[in-house]
This record gives sequence, structure tokens and C-alpha cells, in this order.
Amino acid sequence: MKKLAILGSTGSIGVNTLDIIERFRDKYEIVALSAGSNIQLLKEQITKFKPKVVSVLNKPLAKRLKEELAPLDIEILYGIEGTNNKETLVMAGKIVMKEAKENGVTIFPIDSEHSAIFQSLLGHQKKDVKRIILTASGGPFLNCSQEELANVTIQEALNHPIWEMGKKITIDSASLMNKGLEVIEARWLFDIPHEKIDVHIHPQSIVHSMVEYIDGSVVAQMGLPDMRGPISYALAYPERLPTELPSLNLLEIDKLTFDLPDEKRFPALRLAYRAVEEGGTMPAVLNAANEIAVEAFLNNKIGFTGIPNIIEQTMNSYKVKEINTIQDALEADSWARMKAKVLV
Amino acid sequence: MKKLAILGSTGSIGVNTLDIIERFRDKYEIVALSAGSNIQLLKEQITKFKPKVVSVLNKPLAKRLKEELAPLDIEILYGIEGTNNKETLVMAGKIVMKEAKENGVTIFPIDSEHSAIFQSLLGHQKKDVKRIILTASGGPFLNCSQEELANVTIQEALNHPIWEMGKKITIDSASLMNKGLEVIEARWLFDIPHEKIDVHIHPQSIVHSMVEYIDGSVVAQMGLPDMRGPISYALAYPERLPTELPSLNLLEIDKLTFDLPDEKRFPALRLAYRAVEEGGTMPAVLNAANEIAVEAFLNNKIGFTGIPNIIEQTMNSYKVKEINTIQDALEADSWARMKAKVLV
Repeated sequence: MKKLAILGSTGSIGVNTLDIIERFRDKYEIVALSAGSNIQLLKEQITKFKPKVVSVLNKPLAKRLKEELAPLDIEILYGIEGTNNKETLVMAGKIVMKEAKENGVTIFPIDSEHSAIFQSLLGHQKKDVKRIILTASGGPFLNCSQEELANVTIQEALNHPIWEMGKKITIDSASLMNKGLEVIEARWLFDIPHEKIDVHIHPQSIVHSMVEYIDGSVVAQMGLPDMRGPISYALAYPERLPTELPSLNLLEIDKLTFDLPDEKRFPALRLAYRAVEEGGTMPAVLNAANEIAVEAFLNNKIGFTGIPNIIEQTMNSYKVKEINTIQDALEADSWARMKAKVLV
Repeated sequence: MKKLAILGSTGSIGVNTLDIIERFRDKYEIVALSAGSNIQLLKEQITKFKPKVVSVLNKPLAKRLKEELAPLDIEILYGIEGTNNKETLVMAGKIVMKEAKENGVTIFPIDSEHSAIFQSLLGHQKKDVKRIILTASGGPFLNCSQEELANVTIQEALNHPIWEMGKKITIDSASLMNKGLEVIEARWLFDIPHEKIDVHIHPQSIVHSMVEYIDGSVVAQMGLPDMRGPISYALAYPERLPTELPSLNLLEIDKLTFDLPDEKRFPALRLAYRAVEEGGTMPAVLNAANEIAVEAFLNNKIGFTGIPNIIEQTMNSYKVKEINTIQDALEADSWARMKAKVLV
């Protein structure tokens, strides 16, 4: 019986994870759940999975939950401390991976791209890797002109052709920043320099990513675009779960195509490469500026092409520092948020 | 330094293997070469790789070679005994794999499809395999009607769109019998029942084969169609060689497509499944009848659609036996050759 704590259990990853666990109750036990403010869904999850500990965003929410769940013997905590791990690898990949190594912790990715790379590296030798090829659907604006991009609406940007996700990540997918962040994450997760990480636009989202080896062999992992695939793999590794999810049928798929991303129309990807190349605290600055810019777009304060503009200007006015502690990353993050807000 | 004996050094696999070895002379030593009657090429190979032992088809050829290579200190043998391992796994897979297991021998496949399956299984667990998907280019007649197939010429059949190979295997590719034989080989090499082996037509020949797991994840191995890829992998495993072969560039490939094979127009594949399902000596019968039928086609004695007809009639008049010794396989082989010749 594996014991699990799920931070962010009411988010899309959390919900999908619990969907898998529900099918294999004999293998997994939920000991802790944390969520923000979606108390209604959290209550349903608590009733179903009976965790020992639950954490919510703040004291009033914790109090309300305690009253409503009175008959159940559950410890209810609150606060954002210790649960806010948004884009941790982007902000402080060097530190996280160092800590993981020192503590003998293995990090299993559940992003479909990183899971694909993990699965395509397994059994092969990292020294033989020529490059990693991350695939990207290209998002809803793949074929838009520069002019069209400047005028896209929030609703259009939230309408992703393949994946149903939260608002922030959906906008990141539309701008290709999501892929940029994944490049940075892959760099740290797999300890591969960014020069060896390429991105291919693959609108069908069937090949989730690939690894090319020095002998020309390319190993790829494919599947239907369903987060429960990589989640179940991370849960069960080194085994696999008979998830009975809909199976990939290549015969039903018209074709698989691959293309280079257009960095002119989608500068976010170029900015992410620049951030990881400059290194140190710059990826934290990229990430923070992006969060502010996306928020501004979603609040109708800037246009879609304003997002990379804000990020680039923020990066241009920042002097990169070495990253040795989480504090270094958090300081860069705060600075960039302020700067980006001013620019908005 | 790995020591190698290459049986069939003047065939296409032998030539490609030596091409790889020539690039990594510090890693491999050729201790023995065997060939049939292509003495000219064998002489060049001997001069270059200086094996200790060489074997040719018969005594006159051995004598001629001895005279021409007089200054070199090389042992020259002759005879077909011990070198004729054509379609061994098809004829007697059960026995070969049992012997290999008992003797602690690992068999590394160098067929591109089986190498792809090997690479896609590595690091994953065989018990989690849902199915193997072997890909097939479909050959030169992929889009021919039944009527056109009945009238194809030898020259058309020898004109394979992707792979340049020997005559026999090129005809087998055109009839899809090659894929049928590969299904049988995969069944034994990977100890996977034939019900779990599917074939997809993939005209681009980029995805060399795939493994689908029980959680819906599909791992695939891709590359340019070049035998030197899988050969170098088998030579170097678990390492890989920096072969500097042309790299797969998915951006240059229009699209990847997958389709079901048409068993009506290409009955050879169905016959191969039938042979492995009936088991015992039937695959040996299939293989022998196919060799005779292909020879008859190449000698203009039967048409292209006559090939599967001959095989099916041979199989229909055979009563399958258990296979316990190589002798069982050889007897079935002889019987089927005779029968197929009569049918021709």
C-alpha cells in the first residue's frame, strides 16, 4: 500500500490523480490532501478518500470545513506555507535537484512531456543522449498571423485544441511559454544542458516527447492526450497500472506531423531559452514576469502579444545573480513581479 | 575489444556490419568471416579486417582463395555446415530460444523492427506489455488492386520503395511475407504470444516498431531506414556508438501515417499468423513453401499472386507435428519444399 499526500487535490492534476487512485483503492492510501478554496470539491474528496490530514488556504476556510466535517476524525490545517510549489523547477531547479539527490529522493514527472522523456530514457544511457525533443501542440493560435495574435480575445486564448487545463497554463500553452518552462524543467529533471533540448510543434499531441541517441536512434513515448496516463505511470513505477483508459489507436489518426516553432510569432519560447542560458536567477524572473503578464492579459489590461513584451522588458532590466538558496529565487521573483506590474 | 565472427559477410547485413566496424576498429576485432561464393568481395574484406578464420561455400572456392591470399596466414575452411542459419527463428524458434536460455546466450536482433521492439521494451516490464505493433512499409504494391498484383513483373517486385536488400527478402517485402516471418520471430525473440502482435502499414518506415503497455502508453523507436542503426546498437549494447550516420529529421518528413494491412490482397501475412497459431512444424512449412514459391516467381514460373497460393496449398496438405528437435523442423522443411515444387 503506497501512502500519498496530494498537494492541490482540487486542481486538474489533483482531480485526475484521485480518479486513478479510485480505480486502485487496494494499492494506494490517501493520507493528506491540500487545496486552496474549492471547499465543496475538497469535501467530496475527503468523504471518499478519508485522509488523516487536510490543509486549506486560510483560517476561515479551515473553520468552515471543520464544522461541516465534524463527525469525521480529520486534522485540518491551513496556510500557504509549505504547499506553494508553483514552477519550483523553473525557479530553483538547481537547488531542488541538489536537495533531492542529497536526500535520496526520486522525482517522477507527471507532465506528459517529461513523463515521455523519462520513459524514453529508461533502460538507455544518459551519456548516449544526443538531444531531447519536446513536442508542443502549438496551441490555439498555431496558424495565426502576427496581426491576428495582437487581437486575440481572452476567450479564444482559453480555448485550447487538445488539453483542458487551468486558465494560467492554457494561456501559457497559447503563447508557447508553457513549452519554454518545460524546457527549463527538463534541463533540471534530466540534467541535460538546454543546448540539447529542442522543441517540435506536433499539433496531434500523440508523440508526447522523444529522445535521440548518438547512434541516430530516436525513442519516443506516445499516447492519447490524457493526464491520467503519465499520472498512473508515476504512481505505479516501475510497474504499470491497467488503467483501462481509452487506448491509442494510430489507425484512427490521420497523420502525425512535426514542425519548428515560429519564434517570431511566439517569442516566449526564445525568452525561456535565453533565461536558462543566462542561468542563475533569470528563470525565476522569466516565470514571475510571465505570471504577472498573463494575469494582466486575463484582466484585459494588455493584449496577447503584450505578454512576451512585458517578460522581455522585465528580463532586459534585470541583472542576473547566482542562485544558491531558495531566498535568491524568491527575491528575483518578487523583484520581477514588481517590475512587470509597473510595465503593465 | 569485442571479438566477432560474421557469418554471411558478403550479404547486405554483413557488408553493413563491416561498415560500422570499420569506423570503430579500436572496439571490434574480426576473428572469422564466412561467405558463399562472392570471393572478390570476401578478399577485400579479408585484406581489410585480417580475420584468423574464413569459410566459403565449397572446396574449389576455398582452394582458389588460399592461392590468392597465399602471403596471409589465414585458416580457410569450406562447407555449408554450421553456417546455414536462414530463418532459424521461424523454423525452430522454440528450440533456439530454449538452447539460448540454457546456455546463457543473449540474442540481439538486428532487424530494424526487432531492434525497435528490443529498445522499446528496455527498462519496462514484459508483464505490462499489452501488445507489440510491428510496422511494415507496405512494399512497392501497397496501392495495387488485386488484378494489378496478378500481373506485376519481377522487376517491379524487386523495386522496393525504402530498403535495398537481397532478392528473396525484397519479394517477401512486396508480398508482406517478410512481415509475417517477423511476427513469428518476434513471438519467439520476445516470448510474446502472437495474439499480442499486430502489424501496421507505415509507408514512411520511420517508426520501426512500437510496444503498447497496459496503461495505454506506447513506446516507439524511430530512425532513418538504415540497417547500420540497429546493427551498431546490437554491436555496442548496452552502450551506443556515435555512428555519425545521417540523423532522423522529423521536420523534413511530411507526415507519419499508419494503416491496417489488407489481408485480401496480401494473404501472406494471414498465412504466417495461421502458421504460428497452428504451431509445431507449421512455420517451417510456411517458410520452406515460401522459399520455393519466391524462387518460382523469380524464375518466371508463377505470377506474384501465385506465391501465397502455393504456400496456402502446401500448408493445407500438411498435418502439423510437434517440434522437439531441429530434425523435426528440417523434415517439415524438406517435405514442404518437395510439395511446393510439385505445386509449382
